[in-house]
Amino acid sequence: MLSNFKIVLVETSHPGNIGGVARAMKNMGVSELCLVSPKVFPSADATSRAAGSDDILSSAIVYGCLQEAIADCQIVLGASARDRTISWPELTARECAEKFATVSEAKARDKIAIVFGRENSGLKNHELDLCHYLLRIPCNSAYSSLNLAAAVQVVCYELFIASGQQRESTIGDKNEGSLASARQMELFYEHLQQTLADIGFLHVDKSQSIMRRLRRIYNRAALDTKEVDILRGILRFSQNHNK
Amino acid sequence: MLSNFKIVLVETSHPGNIGGVARAMKNMGVSELCLVSPKVFPSADATSRAAGSDDILSSAIVYGCLQEAIADCQIVLGASARDRTISWPELTARECAEKFATVSEAKARDKIAIVFGRENSGLKNHELDLCHYLLRIPCNSAYSSLNLAAAVQVVCYELFIASGQQRESTIGDKNEGSLASARQMELFYEHLQQTLADIGFLHVDKSQSIMRRLRRIYNRAALDTKEVDILRGILRFSQNHNK
Repeated sequence: MLSNFKIVLVETSHPGNIGGVARAMKNMGVSELCLVSPKVFPSADATSRAAGSDDILSSAIVYGCLQEAIADCQIVLGASARDRTISWPELTARECAEKFATVSEAKARDKIAIVFGRENSGLKNHELDLCHYLLRIPCNSAYSSLNLAAAVQVVCYELFIASGQQRESTIGDKNEGSLASARQMELFYEHLQQTLADIGFLHVDKSQSIMRRLRRIYNRAALDTKEVDILRGILRFSQNHNK
Repeated sequence: MLSNFKIVLVETSHPGNIGGVARAMKNMGVSELCLVSPKVFPSADATSRAAGSDDILSSAIVYGCLQEAIADCQIVLGASARDRTISWPELTARECAEKFATVSEAKARDKIAIVFGRENSGLKNHELDLCHYLLRIPCNSAYSSLNLAAAVQVVCYELFIASGQQRESTIGDKNEGSLASARQMELFYEHLQQTLADIGFLHVDKSQSIMRRLRRIYNRAALDTKEVDILRGILRFSQNHNK
């Protein structure tokens, strides 16, 4: 039912939290766990906290970087407690669940990653650049740091509730084709960056902030695969213009 | 705002869970913790898991039996994962929150206890006899045992949401600048079309359908004025490339 969701943990320090996350996932019917450079894994602490959900631990996949972990995903959400000065499309846990976990033929094909950062410092900006949305759990502003497993519990709980309501999601955009995967979007951004360099638009010192702004635009647009093809066709013509 | 709620833990075995519960409560603005015959308390494990919520631990009150812990409460809810053969008025976590945590003068005077049982065996029937409602957290029926702190996290999260303390919904996109006007968007689309013609991408016979697709992409992205400036800057560089 929630088989198109994966939970991605980035550089988790405490193996007990990984076990707690596995348990929280299984309680709510989410089964795919990806670990990006965990400090310790596998571990007896993780297995102990997992209780009866060690099947999720044993099928967890370990990656060396976040890009690899989300390569097959069309939608990437990054959990964030911080109020960031840069604005980013943001969804609460409930909004996320209502947007992506309600039953919908079209969306059921999309693979969705929900990414949780380090216990102490969350996700870094270059990791958030890979996300289409920030995911926020509303909470006491005076004490907003949820335990990692607790945060995953709340998010998976909301997904579970939304998946059972059988409501049609009316939020968001209808796309004709299937949404582009994270890998396709990365290739597009590489192509875009190269083209902007080729036409002399990008100055080395400003390229990062410009690329971040452009990512936000195209991530918001939630491109389908055909649209990516069109935009890359335009990039090729720009590169070859007057050659 | 949730000051009329108390969380009651009955015969908790693992002190780490008591700390996890304190943290979950504080994250969601619930502060009154009662412990009925905890196996170990206070404890370094509890304090460690509590992170910054040790104020809740230090003000927690320990009771010898459940009756004493709930003596000042008008409403008592007992958390239960089990499908019991005896029928009992039952509320889901969300129903409970909507019934008791929404703002209401009348309800604000009632003291409400939410009681959580032992990690392995929950609440006994003679304890449930003291409850007005069973409180159920919907979850995967094949694996329905939530960790104690995770269960408290979900319930307190629902209370927090229902209490209306969360910030205004931020659904959709936050843009730094003001959204581009229709006039600015038309100028952008004219510029885009001219550029695509200049670089040889647009064939006259297909230009209408391509432009329609591109309009859909950028309309979805809901560009702000600064973003339009950036994109038009890119168009200018494309037009002048290799001139």
